[in-house]
Amino acid sequence: MPKAITAAVLVIGNEILSGRTKDANIGFLGHELNEIGIRLLEARVVADEQSEIIDAVNALRERYDYVFTTGGIGPTHDDITSDSIAAAFNVGIDYHPDVYKLLKDYFESQGTEANEARMRMARVPDGAELIDNDVSLAPGFQIENVFVLAGVPSIARSMFFRAKNRLRHGETMLSRSVRSHVGEGTLANGLSSIQRDFSDVEIGSYPWSKDGRHGTSVVSRSTNSQRLDQAVQQIFQLVDENGGEPVWEDESST
Amino acid sequence: MPKAITAAVLVIGNEILSGRTKDANIGFLGHELNEIGIRLLEARVVADEQSEIIDAVNALRERYDYVFTTGGIGPTHDDITSDSIAAAFNVGIDYHPDVYKLLKDYFESQGTEANEARMRMARVPDGAELIDNDVSLAPGFQIENVFVLAGVPSIARSMFFRAKNRLRHGETMLSRSVRSHVGEGTLANGLSSIQRDFSDVEIGSYPWSKDGRHGTSVVSRSTNSQRLDQAVQQIFQLVDENGGEPVWEDESST
Repeated sequence: MPKAITAAVLVIGNEILSGRTKDANIGFLGHELNEIGIRLLEARVVADEQSEIIDAVNALRERYDYVFTTGGIGPTHDDITSDSIAAAFNVGIDYHPDVYKLLKDYFESQGTEANEARMRMARVPDGAELIDNDVSLAPGFQIENVFVLAGVPSIARSMFFRAKNRLRHGETMLSRSVRSHVGEGTLANGLSSIQRDFSDVEIGSYPWSKDGRHGTSVVSRSTNSQRLDQAVQQIFQLVDENGGEPVWEDESST
Repeated sequence: MPKAITAAVLVIGNEILSGRTKDANIGFLGHELNEIGIRLLEARVVADEQSEIIDAVNALRERYDYVFTTGGIGPTHDDITSDSIAAAFNVGIDYHPDVYKLLKDYFESQGTEANEARMRMARVPDGAELIDNDVSLAPGFQIENVFVLAGVPSIARSMFFRAKNRLRHGETMLSRSVRSHVGEGTLANGLSSIQRDFSDVEIGSYPWSKDGRHGTSVVSRSTNSQRLDQAVQQIFQLVDENGGEPVWEDESST
């Protein structure tokens, strides 16, 4: 079996940790990576502190095939991601001539002053490859296995789709979910036994509660479609035997 | 100045990393901790893998005053947090007599079988102190500086409020936000200069975009109300001078 391709996300920003802003990038990246057979195995959120960013990016890039950072590449004093990434890789950082021209022409065409702060967004670590930004122009960049994306979700998404073709694809992780009206405690012993028989299928059990009813969604994931089918048939039967009225849940939500 | 009290959150669960479930606990805990003067400085999300949980909890509990974990304390085979925490602290884990009785009586009163899986929720690491669960009964626990909460947001909240009186309070971090209709790039140089003059105020700049308009919210935070007032007056004036129509933003959203 080929080795799984792995990834981590590093969210950079005080506003996530203070609760001011809800992160929307971890879930998006997890879902998108999963679609191309890359497994998101860890996410971290750190504050706008250079030493924290450096330590986290160095820990993660060593350990995972890909790292995606979000946040901290705008024009203001608290946008310190690009410098921190350059420091993490121990390379210089300077104005990238193409980006400099792109931004300067754009600001001038808009009648906006191309001031020092705005032009900071043209600074890119040495050796990095740009990632186009279809939303607000100032690009992200890739350096080795680290992809540096904006924090604003629409921009992060645009950049991810631009960079996606640079990623190796792994075996697609298939997912099927059985929704039921029995509690986890009723299914637990049976699920344990099915999980023991299917070590190549990852079985997760998630309680739900809606409109006064409650139950369990059992999500099974595997790269092996045959084994996955066998496991979910057993899960479906287990739920049925326990009066749980099993239904297949939309896979897109799993 | 007294040393700040710090915290980290460790979210445990494959479903967050796969994008199936959006985490709602990091923001909640960040906000609540902030209210009592505890600064959330880091959050991590790891998969349901014992070694990952152990490594993360040991790294975080060493480094921060408090660690809050969420997820993985239910009855199914993928709920491995309690065992992982016991292993991280190198202590045993066994049925807690009070919890055992509480859950057994409850299940029997409900006509629900107190089977092995359900009773697993009565297992607590040696030396841990319980955290009551007002929503679904099975408790969380505290061991040294680590608080182990459920993953379901309503239960995590209930447990946090039960455990809150055990936390030392730090100096309250005050927050004020100025919302405007100018871009970050226009304010950036002025903000840098204000930030240089107010090293004891944390100034964050966040672009927003709504209904075709866009602008910047500048959030200032400090434990020193006088210095905070001085800084935000300067920010308000900076925005005004740049035609940004400054308004005070509701502090509850910052």
